[in-house]
Amino acid sequence: MGSDITAEEIAKAAKVAFEESQLFPAAVRIDALAKIRQQLEANKAEIFAANKLDMEAAQVEVDAGKMSNAMMKRLDLGKGDKWDSMLKGVQDVADLPDPTGVVSYTSQLDDDLELYRVSCPIGVLLVIFEARPEVVVNIAALAIKSGNAAILKGGKESNHTTHLLAKAISQGLSQTSLPSTYVQAIQTRAEVSALLDLDRYIDLVIPRGGNSLVKAIQNSTRIPVMGHADGLCHVYLDESADSQKAVRVVVDSKTDYPSACNAAETLIVHTSLLNTVWREVAQALLAADVHLLCDSHTLSALASLPNVPERFSSHVHSSTESSYSVEHLDLTISVIALPSLHSAIQFINSHSSHHTDSIITESERAASAFCRGVDSAGTFVNASTRFADGFRYGFGTEVGISTGRIHARGPVGLEGLVTYKYILRSKAERGHTVGEFGVGEGKKSFKHAAIATTSVPF
Amino acid sequence: MGSDITAEEIAKAAKVAFEESQLFPAAVRIDALAKIRQQLEANKAEIFAANKLDMEAAQVEVDAGKMSNAMMKRLDLGKGDKWDSMLKGVQDVADLPDPTGVVSYTSQLDDDLELYRVSCPIGVLLVIFEARPEVVVNIAALAIKSGNAAILKGGKESNHTTHLLAKAISQGLSQTSLPSTYVQAIQTRAEVSALLDLDRYIDLVIPRGGNSLVKAIQNSTRIPVMGHADGLCHVYLDESADSQKAVRVVVDSKTDYPSACNAAETLIVHTSLLNTVWREVAQALLAADVHLLCDSHTLSALASLPNVPERFSSHVHSSTESSYSVEHLDLTISVIALPSLHSAIQFINSHSSHHTDSIITESERAASAFCRGVDSAGTFVNASTRFADGFRYGFGTEVGISTGRIHARGPVGLEGLVTYKYILRSKAERGHTVGEFGVGEGKKSFKHAAIATTSVPF
Repeated sequence: MGSDITAEEIAKAAKVAFEESQLFPAAVRIDALAKIRQQLEANKAEIFAANKLDMEAAQVEVDAGKMSNAMMKRLDLGKGDKWDSMLKGVQDVADLPDPTGVVSYTSQLDDDLELYRVSCPIGVLLVIFEARPEVVVNIAALAIKSGNAAILKGGKESNHTTHLLAKAISQGLSQTSLPSTYVQAIQTRAEVSALLDLDRYIDLVIPRGGNSLVKAIQNSTRIPVMGHADGLCHVYLDESADSQKAVRVVVDSKTDYPSACNAAETLIVHTSLLNTVWREVAQALLAADVHLLCDSHTLSALASLPNVPERFSSHVHSSTESSYSVEHLDLTISVIALPSLHSAIQFINSHSSHHTDSIITESERAASAFCRGVDSAGTFVNASTRFADGFRYGFGTEVGISTGRIHARGPVGLEGLVTYKYILRSKAERGHTVGEFGVGEGKKSFKHAAIATTSVPF
Repeated sequence: MGSDITAEEIAKAAKVAFEESQLFPAAVRIDALAKIRQQLEANKAEIFAANKLDMEAAQVEVDAGKMSNAMMKRLDLGKGDKWDSMLKGVQDVADLPDPTGVVSYTSQLDDDLELYRVSCPIGVLLVIFEARPEVVVNIAALAIKSGNAAILKGGKESNHTTHLLAKAISQGLSQTSLPSTYVQAIQTRAEVSALLDLDRYIDLVIPRGGNSLVKAIQNSTRIPVMGHADGLCHVYLDESADSQKAVRVVVDSKTDYPSACNAAETLIVHTSLLNTVWREVAQALLAADVHLLCDSHTLSALASLPNVPERFSSHVHSSTESSYSVEHLDLTISVIALPSLHSAIQFINSHSSHHTDSIITESERAASAFCRGVDSAGTFVNASTRFADGFRYGFGTEVGISTGRIHARGPVGLEGLVTYKYILRSKAERGHTVGEFGVGEGKKSFKHAAIATTSVPF
């Protein structure tokens, strides 16, 4: 934490800690999580005192109009059951199945020559997030559980709290055989910039925060980045859409949590529905206080109603081309009418952030085409885009949501923090050489038979 | 192929072709492979005429001392059974199991709400390789089989041949419902540079070639790159090493194919073996015409032999620190003595290219520690590093070998050309909203029960 340690020293220490940790069994990491929880409890008073300092500084910013109340609330470790659920989260992560050591491919290449593909940690993670102090503990737990070393950087507004949380984590680690540099916290942007250059030591960057943070990081590093900048999700009302499903799913996708990345931002209406389902959906959205940015077709379908809907004049506006590239993140939705499933798929593929898109349809054929044709991490049928979430998917946790196609895609659980390696063992009396295999007299052929095991037997 | 098409137009056409192709069943792609094979056969005479032009130009370069004979041989499509095995390769890839549509995770989130994680193509591949014309056909087959669009760039020395091979591929595609821009070939470096900037359209870059080619590409793009620059593999002779296994595995690892990336470059000898196993291994290596770059310990163990080995003066040299960072790619191996398994693991982790490293040991404990402690794509026990290969691993093909940890690691088969997406379907009468779930009266909990299926049922 001292400012006299360079970014390279931090990164190198993390890599060494990672490498050393590979020789310890998973039980050591579970024990570390218990010790960390104890240290957090033992240091609760000091941590809350530090959090009070952050909150006081934040209050000055809020009073000066430089910080939102929402951001200040996120800083508050004493809000509701945040502290208790943070501690419970450490235990919950400890209780999840071990993501490492899982065999996903086997092959007996020859008598006494066995190949295993087994999951293992990635290495050193650099995790960058906004000023939410409990995330330090949450991410540390995920990294330790999955066997990765981690370097953590939270928003500067939470620096006092983060510093003491990281100290408690180090103290917990120091009571185990794991190196105390297994999890390190850094406090300055300058350190982040320097770390983003160190692809020799850092294997994966995970930014958790707004669009601009993620984009800035993606643009300034060659290290793989796992995350998402945008969440521009669509709902498409197919020709055969049921109106009740349409109303329920569209309203939920838009209004359940409008600032979430999996909220819907654009609604596509099949032109055959303009005077039927679309009118019902529009009225339900207006009743839920949603503003509609409509193309000419969807707009005139509402304007020509015998009884103009309530809020029509205040909430219905004409869209522009750019309306369909905007992540509104509030109670606004862009609407466009399109003449076919095929044009809807093309529109989504060119406008979506490839996060999550949903079709409302009674046609199995349309559902199948939509799910295959839409090139997004999640393609849904008659279900809200808001289901795109690691907990809802049943992962027990969520490391983030990725809109990349490489490594992990969509909501990412602990599995996203592991890679795999191949272990090959010869038990033959003379070992194994490739010269023994081939065509010709005395040469052997590969057997390539599966081995029935779920773990490496040595 | 025309020089008036911009790189952006090529990339965009590839993306559109990819998106359109998603709506076709896998059978269309299998059919395309058959049609491509027919077109190649139908155009054999023209293709060989073009290859003759490339060979003639190459002969001029060879005569002028500007090209190696080995490189010219690689250009020759008529060499041995290259043509026939290229055609057979198309069929072999067509016959492999479909890597797409495979369900790897399911969860019944609620009655009538089903989640499937299913493998699907990545998108647009940019594959860059040296002047081996048959690789165009090989890679096109792999891309088509896995459902990806591809842009291919071979070494300029094979341009005439590549052009006609690509033309035959396009003609084959045009006899199917797949767009003919599904596979495109480009011919200039300038186009490659421009394409490496187009991360909007290109999803994965696969360089197949030498260290400098791969490094140059990794340094000039933000698009994920799958491959390896170095292959610096180690063999470690553990304290308990059996001398016959040591001799056989070390000689095979070094001499079976010295210019391959999975050949051994450095031998680590436990100090307790200096006067025993090491001497036998050294004599076997010398007998196989291998040059030894030895540290002081391994050197004096040979110099102090009562009968100095044949070739000692010509083939045994002192190493320097930099000897252990060199990929020799010929009959030379660097040798160092280290006092423990732990120091060998540390040495490998700091010098290896994380490709493949092997231990020779009779100790199960040492084997286990080595396989977990060495942070490489392949960790082997009593087996040659040369086994690190997609065909030997049983994948039926090899897209490349990756030393990255993200997405694919080690030898990569067709699985490395797919990602996955989540498909969620509600069959409930009213569709599904997240508002139905939570705590409180009338709220539902998630069920998260596995669904017994290996494919998406619609």
